[in-house]
Amino acid sequence: MQAELLIHAQWVLPVDPEDRQLDDHAVAIADGRIRALMPSQEARRSIQAQRVIELPGHLLIPGLVNAHTHAAMTLMRGLADDLPLMTWLHQHIWPTEKRWIDPSFVGDGTRLAVLEMLRGGVTCYNDMYFYPEVTAQVTAEAGMRGVIGMIVVDFPTGYADTADDYIAKGLALHDRYREHPLIRVAFAPHSPYAVSDAPFERIRVLADELEVPIHVHLHETHDEVVQSLRDHGERPLGRLDRLGLVGPALVSIHMTQLEDPEIERLAQAGAHVVHCPESNLKLASGFCPVAKLLDAGVNVGLGTDGAASNNDLNLLGEMRTAALLGKGVAGSAAVVPAAAALRMATINGARALGLEGEIGSLEPGKSADLVALDLGDSHTQPIYHPVSQLVYAAGRHQVRQVWVQGQHVIRDGVSTRLDPTEVIASARTWGERIGAADG
Amino acid sequence: MQAELLIHAQWVLPVDPEDRQLDDHAVAIADGRIRALMPSQEARRSIQAQRVIELPGHLLIPGLVNAHTHAAMTLMRGLADDLPLMTWLHQHIWPTEKRWIDPSFVGDGTRLAVLEMLRGGVTCYNDMYFYPEVTAQVTAEAGMRGVIGMIVVDFPTGYADTADDYIAKGLALHDRYREHPLIRVAFAPHSPYAVSDAPFERIRVLADELEVPIHVHLHETHDEVVQSLRDHGERPLGRLDRLGLVGPALVSIHMTQLEDPEIERLAQAGAHVVHCPESNLKLASGFCPVAKLLDAGVNVGLGTDGAASNNDLNLLGEMRTAALLGKGVAGSAAVVPAAAALRMATINGARALGLEGEIGSLEPGKSADLVALDLGDSHTQPIYHPVSQLVYAAGRHQVRQVWVQGQHVIRDGVSTRLDPTEVIASARTWGERIGAADG
Repeated sequence: MQAELLIHAQWVLPVDPEDRQLDDHAVAIADGRIRALMPSQEARRSIQAQRVIELPGHLLIPGLVNAHTHAAMTLMRGLADDLPLMTWLHQHIWPTEKRWIDPSFVGDGTRLAVLEMLRGGVTCYNDMYFYPEVTAQVTAEAGMRGVIGMIVVDFPTGYADTADDYIAKGLALHDRYREHPLIRVAFAPHSPYAVSDAPFERIRVLADELEVPIHVHLHETHDEVVQSLRDHGERPLGRLDRLGLVGPALVSIHMTQLEDPEIERLAQAGAHVVHCPESNLKLASGFCPVAKLLDAGVNVGLGTDGAASNNDLNLLGEMRTAALLGKGVAGSAAVVPAAAALRMATINGARALGLEGEIGSLEPGKSADLVALDLGDSHTQPIYHPVSQLVYAAGRHQVRQVWVQGQHVIRDGVSTRLDPTEVIASARTWGERIGAADG
Repeated sequence: MQAELLIHAQWVLPVDPEDRQLDDHAVAIADGRIRALMPSQEARRSIQAQRVIELPGHLLIPGLVNAHTHAAMTLMRGLADDLPLMTWLHQHIWPTEKRWIDPSFVGDGTRLAVLEMLRGGVTCYNDMYFYPEVTAQVTAEAGMRGVIGMIVVDFPTGYADTADDYIAKGLALHDRYREHPLIRVAFAPHSPYAVSDAPFERIRVLADELEVPIHVHLHETHDEVVQSLRDHGERPLGRLDRLGLVGPALVSIHMTQLEDPEIERLAQAGAHVVHCPESNLKLASGFCPVAKLLDAGVNVGLGTDGAASNNDLNLLGEMRTAALLGKGVAGSAAVVPAAAALRMATINGARALGLEGEIGSLEPGKSADLVALDLGDSHTQPIYHPVSQLVYAAGRHQVRQVWVQGQHVIRDGVSTRLDPTEVIASARTWGERIGAADG
C-alpha cells in the first residue's frame, strides 16, 4: 500500500467500540485520511510511505473535540474571577463585551484560542459567539476544524439587530462554508432565556432543512429553571420539547439540573449533552449527573466553555475533571472510567456534532486528525495503562505532535501555522486596553 | 546590603497577610534566607549581590507545601484505577504493598515523587509511609524539605511488628534528624480505624514532649464514621478528642464528613485540616466543606495524597481543583478565591506543619524556598491578575526555577540534584515487575 505518511507509536488508543489499546502500531495516511492502522512490524513490510515518523514512548489518540466554547473570550481570561455570577456578568463580562467586541476582537481572541487548543491536542471545536464569520476564517486559516455557531439572541448587539437578522447572517455564513473541508456551521441559539419561541421554531425548521446541529445552553443553573417555570410555566427542556427541538440535532450544553424523566426523554430522543465540569464548578452552577446520563444511553461530549469561566481551553484537563467529578457526584469510584472520559472528549463530541463518520476515532476512512503525547515525563511513569496516564496524570505540555486532515499543525509542540509571538503580542495589547477600562 | 543572590521578577505574590501583588520586585537572599523584598529599582541601587537573576514575564511565589502524601506510591501510579474502593484496596494496592514494599521500593518511589514535586514547584511535603528513614534520606539528598511521618498502625508489616515497634522506630528517626536543616519528623498514626486507643494515647504524650505534629487520616469516608459509631459508639473525631488529640498539633487529612459542631470544635481547638480534593473525588469519598471550614477560621492546607489515588503530585493543579470544587460544593462562585487557594497551598500548609515561622510566605527572615513560573505561554495570556492565571490557567510545566533554602534545585525546568534518566529507568523497572504480578 502507498501512503504519504506513516506514523509509528508505542501505544495507540483508537477509541474504537472495544476501547482497545494497541501496542507498537502504525497509522498510514494519504489524502488527509487514515488508510490503515496495523502493527508496526507489518506496516514496515507492507506500506511504502513518503515520510515515516517514529514515536517511541508516545501515545497516539484521535484529535480531541472541544464541544462547547466561546473562543474569542480568551481575551477576557482572568479579567474577573471569584465573583457572584450576577456581579461577574453585569459589572465585568457584559460591559466589556458591549464596549469592545468587534471583528478585530473576535479575530484576535479566536487566534489565541485556536493556538491554545491546537497545542493542547484539540483538533475540532464547537463555538458560539458574535461575528462567527471571523471565527470561521481564523479557524480555517489555522488549519483547525470548527463547527461555527450561527448565534441567535432576541436582543440587538453590534453584530445584529433582531433574531431574524442573526438568523439571516448565520445563513449567509452557512452558504459560504457549505463545501469547506474544515468548517461546518451549526445553529447556536444562545439559551431558552435569551431566545423566544418564534425564533426557536424557525431555527427548528431551518436546522431540519440544512441538517445541522442546534447548539444551546440548557439547564445551566437552578435559576434558569425557576425563571422558565415562572415565565413559561414549564422547565426549559419541556419548552424546547414542545417547540420540537428535542431530537438528534439538539446539542444541549451544561445540563446541571435534570430530573430522571428528563434524562429518559433525552435518551429516547437521541439528544446530546455537552458536559462542562470546570465552568459549572467555577460559576457554582450545579453538578451534571454524568454517570446517570451515560447509564441511560445519552451521548455526552465534553467542553471547556469560554476562557472567562474556566479559565483555559484545556480539554485534556477537562477529561480529568470529568472523570474525577463524575465519581464524586455519583458516589462511586467505578463510574466514568478513564476510557469513558476519553470517549467523551473524542467520539462522543464528534457524534454530538454530526461528525462521527469523519472524526473522533482512528479508523480507516476517517480524517487523519491525530494527537501524539510523549509519556516519557517522570510524572507519567511508570506506565501500567496508557489510558490512565493520559486521563489522570498527563499534562497538555506533553502533546508534541498534532495533525488535522493529515496536515502537521503542531510539530514538536510548536504551531506550524500561527506565530505565537504575534498572537501573544496582540492578546497583550487587548489585555492592556480592556484592563484599563474594566472596574 | 550584601546578598548572595538577587532575583528580579515581573510579579511577586509574597502571600503576606494582605495578599499583596508586587510588580517589578526583587528578593535578596543570603545564607539560605530571604534578606529583603523590595522594588527592583531600589534593589538595583541598594543591594550588592554576587549573582543576579532577571525573570521578566515570571511570577515569583513561595514554594508550595504538599501537606499530605504517600510519596513512594508513585510506583503504583495508574496500576488500578476506576475500581470500587474495596476492590482497589484488597485486590491491588494491599497485595502490591505486601509483596513489594521494602527500603529499595520506598527509595526509588520517593525519588520519583521528589523529582515530580520539585519540578512542579513543591518545596516541602508531609509524608506518611513505611520505611520513613529511607524517605527522609532521599528527600535530604534531593535538597527538598520534608516532614517525614513516624507511621503507626496496629498490625505488623515488613517494616514493624506492633504499634510500640512502629513508635520505637519512629523515635529513632526523630532523634537522627533532630538538627537537620531540611527534615522534620512528625507522628503519623494512619487512621482511627488502624490504630487503637493505647497507641493514640502514647502518641499524644510523645507529641507533646517532642512538639511535633500528629498527621492522621480522619473522616475520609462515610463508612469510616459508621464503623467508628459501631465499634466505639462515637464518631472518629469525637474519639480522638476524648483521647486528647484534638489540638494545635492535629493535622487531620480529608475530613469529608463533618457536622457543624465538629467544624466549631476544630476551630476552637486550633486543629488543622488538609484538603485532598482530587483523591476525595477519585475515590468518591465525599466532599470536604472547605468554604465552611475557612469561614469558621479553621486552618486548611492542601495535599495531593499518594499517586495511587490522584494520580499525580501536582499541587498547582490541586489548588485549581480546590478553588473550583470549593465553589461547586458551597454553591457560590465567590468562595475559595484564587488568593485563598494559594494560601492553602503555601502558608496554611506551613502552619499545619508548625513551619509557619520558616516557610510558606516570602518575608525577610524566612527560608529562601521560592518558585518562579513563566507566564508567557499563550494559555496564560493576557494577564489581568497574576494570581488568577496562576490558580486557574497555569500548568506546572511553567515552573522554571525552584530554590530551597537558597539552593537552586530546579534550573530552567531541570533538576540539579536528581538524574531524571536514572529515576525514570528505575521506575520503569519497578513498573514491569509490579505490573507482571498484579491482577
